[in-house]
Amino acid sequence: MSDIQKLETNEKLSRVVIHQGVAYLSGLTADDRSADTFGQTLQVLRKADILLGKAQSDKSKILSAQIWMRDINEFDEMNRAWTTWLDGTVPPARATVGATFALADIRVEIQFTAAV
Amino acid sequence: MSDIQKLETNEKLSRVVIHQGVAYLSGLTADDRSADTFGQTLQVLRKADILLGKAQSDKSKILSAQIWMRDINEFDEMNRAWTTWLDGTVPPARATVGATFALADIRVEIQFTAAV
Amino acid sequence: MSDIQKLETNEKLSRVVIHQGVAYLSGLTADDRSADTFGQTLQVLRKADILLGKAQSDKSKILSAQIWMRDINEFDEMNRAWTTWLDGTVPPARATVGATFALADIRVEIQFTAAV
Repeated sequence: MSDIQKLETNEKLSRVVIHQGVAYLSGLTADDRSADTFGQTLQVLRKADILLGKAQSDKSKILSAQIWMRDINEFDEMNRAWTTWLDGTVPPARATVGATFALADIRVEIQFTAAV
Repeated sequence: MSDIQKLETNEKLSRVVIHQGVAYLSGLTADDRSADTFGQTLQVLRKADILLGKAQSDKSKILSAQIWMRDINEFDEMNRAWTTWLDGTVPPARATVGATFALADIRVEIQFTAAV
Repeated sequence: MSDIQKLETNEKLSRVVIHQGVAYLSGLTADDRSADTFGQTLQVLRKADILLGKAQSDKSKILSAQIWMRDINEFDEMNRAWTTWLDGTVPPARATVGATFALADIRVEIQFTAAV
């Protein structure tokens, strides 16, 4: 399997899987979950920056993002963090829906696919 | 980034991102949300036709679809619009689950990945 | 469309779509839905083994998985089946959220993308 690279692996998942020039990331959540939706979203996006860097990618090369929110009514708050982070970068394709999470204090989870 | 094409971009997302022969679309919703689930699904699928066309793709080249529904009990109604639209086209891989949306009158959202 | 292969097709979906070395699977659910979350997850994963085999792939080549659960509080039960099935295989990227399903007795649905 020399053509599949798996990084940051634990027993359940690999945070980054690279194949044929595309990086598939695991769903990312915030470490400090006492933060509100704006804060959790920024944490997720900074974590994405680091993981994308390990895959020789960056936010300008993200192809697609799926965003799940505990409370979809906080959509604007999440978007405020999203556009702050983009900071003028042309955004990827994206979909956002409400869902439930394994940990009650998770407010947002984002999964990315990116070019490397 | 000459190898990534982003079309129909706004500040939050690009409706179509093309990379290495694959188009990643944003989640699509209906413009006239007074329509029922059948009608909203058809609107979404016609919007997809247009976006796929801009990516030099079409419904026969869709690889995968994710469908989110406000009321998963309207699954059959969504499927009726889906098969009407397919009109004999061999369908893509697909998954459908219920979720919540940022706008209360959205009944269905679909995100596609397609070959170009 | 000689470059897109669609397998196990019905009127609504193809269970496997192969394009440029990547297989896109449909969301898989258990056939015996009287089983609990552990049992349904194992059924889904065994079904995935078969479908991946038809695509000349296998669980070690899965790139990404999305898991939807009826009751996200049964996360540990699902993970127990997941790691049993992995049996030491380095895992793919993954995201898991709670959602609702078209059939009330579905407890888990998983959608895979794999290298072929």
